[in-house]
Amino acid sequence: MIDKLIEKIQKTKAPIVVGLDPMLSYVPEHVQKKAFAEYGETLRGAAEAIWQFNKEIVDQTFDLIPAVKPQIAMYEQFGVEGMEAYKKTVDYCKSKGLVVIGDVKRGDIGSTSAAYAAGHLGKVQVGSQTYTGFDEDFATVNPYLGSDGVKPFIDVCKEEKKGLFILVKTSNPSSGEFQDQRVNGRPLYELVGEKVAQWGSEHCGKTYSYIGAVVGATYPEQGKLLRKVMPKAFILVPGYGAQGGKGKDLVHFFNEDGLGAIVNSSRGIIAAYKQEAYAKYGPEHYAEASRAAVEDMVADIRGALEARG
Amino acid sequence: MIDKLIEKIQKTKAPIVVGLDPMLSYVPEHVQKKAFAEYGETLRGAAEAIWQFNKEIVDQTFDLIPAVKPQIAMYEQFGVEGMEAYKKTVDYCKSKGLVVIGDVKRGDIGSTSAAYAAGHLGKVQVGSQTYTGFDEDFATVNPYLGSDGVKPFIDVCKEEKKGLFILVKTSNPSSGEFQDQRVNGRPLYELVGEKVAQWGSEHCGKTYSYIGAVVGATYPEQGKLLRKVMPKAFILVPGYGAQGGKGKDLVHFFNEDGLGAIVNSSRGIIAAYKQEAYAKYGPEHYAEASRAAVEDMVADIRGALEARG
Repeated sequence: MIDKLIEKIQKTKAPIVVGLDPMLSYVPEHVQKKAFAEYGETLRGAAEAIWQFNKEIVDQTFDLIPAVKPQIAMYEQFGVEGMEAYKKTVDYCKSKGLVVIGDVKRGDIGSTSAAYAAGHLGKVQVGSQTYTGFDEDFATVNPYLGSDGVKPFIDVCKEEKKGLFILVKTSNPSSGEFQDQRVNGRPLYELVGEKVAQWGSEHCGKTYSYIGAVVGATYPEQGKLLRKVMPKAFILVPGYGAQGGKGKDLVHFFNEDGLGAIVNSSRGIIAAYKQEAYAKYGPEHYAEASRAAVEDMVADIRGALEARG
Repeated sequence: MIDKLIEKIQKTKAPIVVGLDPMLSYVPEHVQKKAFAEYGETLRGAAEAIWQFNKEIVDQTFDLIPAVKPQIAMYEQFGVEGMEAYKKTVDYCKSKGLVVIGDVKRGDIGSTSAAYAAGHLGKVQVGSQTYTGFDEDFATVNPYLGSDGVKPFIDVCKEEKKGLFILVKTSNPSSGEFQDQRVNGRPLYELVGEKVAQWGSEHCGKTYSYIGAVVGATYPEQGKLLRKVMPKAFILVPGYGAQGGKGKDLVHFFNEDGLGAIVNSSRGIIAAYKQEAYAKYGPEHYAEASRAAVEDMVADIRGALEARG
């Protein structure tokens, strides 16, 4: 799956991923109204609204991008009905040929991580039958529990040829509270990065490992260091746009081959119509605003990479 | 809710919680067969089997215990249908007067943690209506992202009078890989424990804080230290029984008042009928075996606390 991701990045010339994190407040009124007319102002109505919102954005952008990253929390908040909208979104994106990174940030002790891994990346056995639960291509994983919390995910990835992005240095302001603590003179995130490189060496694609890392766009210096610590790891970079990162800050997340990183933007793309720059599209044409924002983001990052030479 | 938990612990004289973590392999054949007869060997059939399995255990034990802790991964592995079984389990346990600790180990950047907090502990707005998603009483939270990943959970807890258990030192063998790393001479888990105490000071019940911690039974020495670091925090202690912890190892997790900790057992209770000690019940009477295992666990822990004097 890492090979497929790379292939798609090369084909689209877009090392980016669109974060499908639909807050109900991003969904234009006409989409909400239609969903509520069918299902009422209910959890099902909300789930229908975010699914229809996603679908139109995917339809308008899938030819420009290699991957999407739905953030499961935005669906989980609407309970079981929200999880159905998540599943529909994952399935639809796959049907459009997109690589799906489930931003689930799961992680637990061994047997429990095994259940999460089965549910998101693998299969479950029910009597004589096997089924998939949510069936994303990649999942994000929290490393706080150490190797035996991560290994069951890697085991499933090996079997299914799927991949992980493990949280190393997150994009939020207080990520340093624990991640930057110095252990023998080095920050904790560097240790976690070394572990990612080690775990990743067990499960490699043609040029990169199936086991990647999450490093926030808001910490370019740390990105530069971690790029060297984990040379074979693809880095998923959140925090572009709305969180403050810009293309020129991100060049050091990439290797010399122009690969090795994939930059996420969520709000900046899916709620683009709310920004002044794309206001001309209006809420009616929100998905076209998303397409324009994707084009601008790709140009910004490609430009920065070309300027690097 | 922490006051309700304490009240129930005092009433039942049982500082324990039953982990409802139903692997399909724990579910006796007659329960599986009945579910599959109705829904086939499908995800819905599996979800029905684990729900019926849970229900009978709850019916046989709810009068002896203050709380249950369903592990969401065991449901999530069965996809949307599994999440329905999770929701049914949460609702049913609440209808029996039990405190429900959702073992979800969520944690993300601020806006995303806010969505998880809304979905598990709070409410979501849909048009002019408000709804609850999963509506547990407590949730477990992963602290790797720092304060701004935890704060949105605390905000919702304040509003809803609900609580958290934050991962400090987990019960698994490799928990030390990152959690034990020394920062200025002290292990990382101690720093996290200090933060828990600090976060908890913002949101207190009558005698204890609403913000508790997870510290594994398998690390009694660390439990002793962390008890002092977080005097007002209730400690959720996994790892009893199947993972190796015993009553006498656990006395230092409790304060002098006999409170301050709640010990979880999952497999040891819900799959008790598979152990030699309870084999006489047989798979047909698995829930009675669970009841006997609860009684033995309570006696073990109460005995150890009394022996401490």
